[in-house]
Amino acid sequence: MHTNVGSYPFHIASYMCDFQGRAPLPLLGSLILHAASRHAHERGFGYDHISRDKIAWVLSRLAIEWTDYPGRDEALTIETWVGEVARFYTQRCFRFVNAEGRAIGHARSVWAALDMCSRRPVNISEWRPDLAAYACGEIECPVARPARIPAAEAGDVSREYTVGYSDIDINGHLNSVKYIEHTLDVFDLAVFRENVIRRFEITYLAEGHFGEALALRRQPVSENEYIVETLRGEESLCRSRISWERVR
Amino acid sequence: MHTNVGSYPFHIASYMCDFQGRAPLPLLGSLILHAASRHAHERGFGYDHISRDKIAWVLSRLAIEWTDYPGRDEALTIETWVGEVARFYTQRCFRFVNAEGRAIGHARSVWAALDMCSRRPVNISEWRPDLAAYACGEIECPVARPARIPAAEAGDVSREYTVGYSDIDINGHLNSVKYIEHTLDVFDLAVFRENVIRRFEITYLAEGHFGEALALRRQPVSENEYIVETLRGEESLCRSRISWERVR
Repeated sequence: MHTNVGSYPFHIASYMCDFQGRAPLPLLGSLILHAASRHAHERGFGYDHISRDKIAWVLSRLAIEWTDYPGRDEALTIETWVGEVARFYTQRCFRFVNAEGRAIGHARSVWAALDMCSRRPVNISEWRPDLAAYACGEIECPVARPARIPAAEAGDVSREYTVGYSDIDINGHLNSVKYIEHTLDVFDLAVFRENVIRRFEITYLAEGHFGEALALRRQPVSENEYIVETLRGEESLCRSRISWERVR
Repeated sequence: MHTNVGSYPFHIASYMCDFQGRAPLPLLGSLILHAASRHAHERGFGYDHISRDKIAWVLSRLAIEWTDYPGRDEALTIETWVGEVARFYTQRCFRFVNAEGRAIGHARSVWAALDMCSRRPVNISEWRPDLAAYACGEIECPVARPARIPAAEAGDVSREYTVGYSDIDINGHLNSVKYIEHTLDVFDLAVFRENVIRRFEITYLAEGHFGEALALRRQPVSENEYIVETLRGEESLCRSRISWERVR
């Protein structure tokens, strides 16, 4: 019998760290996917179970907020629970706890259940009414809901890439974490040296495929905030909003 | 008290898999680094210990051979041991064991100990004579030693990229696994659909840095074998030799 909150221990090895010896945001994004995947699997609505119905969970929005970035050789526990089950999406929350038991980050994510044949979202309350029993809306998750992110209209194209084998996930689409990697790569190393990301928010709008040429457009919206958009021609595949805080 | 062979369990989640639901080679490369890092850490010669001496382990060569690629939701154990301690390098071996206890892959790697100030290799037998006690040359590792890989002279430039934040590791250099990702990305998805990689070999020749523009040159050397070279101008940063086997 599993409780509604799943808890997954993790160890941050040095080879996973960035040039400052910190766990990079894409790794934390992977841990979020990892915890979500394990939590759902253990409770009977993981990839394995729902792919029998030709349905896949698709990450639609994600917001991550950090106070302390975990570092090399640190232990970390990721807790996750379903915050809400609505008709066409579920919300899933995350809490990152360090070795001393202190919460050092939280995340909030929105998932759609996608029919792999029609490519349309599935009505979750009709398809799997049992999921409602997992919702624990009462647990606090101090992260504002991921909101609509505007296009990076006035931005400069600061990076381009062609989607390769390593970018493609099990559903045949550009991997959610790879979008985050490419998004962060529009910033200079000096930005990471002098600042930390306090909030990172991403909205996935369309699926990227193998061989497509993508461009990243970056627009500053205030002194410490940027919008980064991933574009296929003029079509937006995803948009991120990054809030930096100066540390030195 | 740790034995000379380290054993590390791992679970392959669906979000880690490639478009065919298999663990991709860069993930297996990460597991190799993970096992090497844990094994060395537990025995007192990990990143933490040797960075006090301003020394870092640098992966110089790696050869991986697979019979079966592990898939989604499979359990996997990675065993590792030091095969040989020579004056200027150590050899480390790996065995991948599936849930039934069967070996499905092996790897052999060569590491140098690099002085972080002088950037010169350290004489390991003088610096850490205690490491010799960990060598278990008698355990079988059925992978030929990584050999010299020639330049991809007649190859076409098939991919280019600029080293970004996500490519840089804790030592400030292009991450060993990222080289493997970029190397595989010179192949079309159809190649992965119709073939599996039976042997992958890589030699790291020079360190890549943030912001550098790199190019990948690909040369077929026989029907099922390619050399892929990562270049900074005309300087070779790394060379790989990839042996494919047709599966359909």
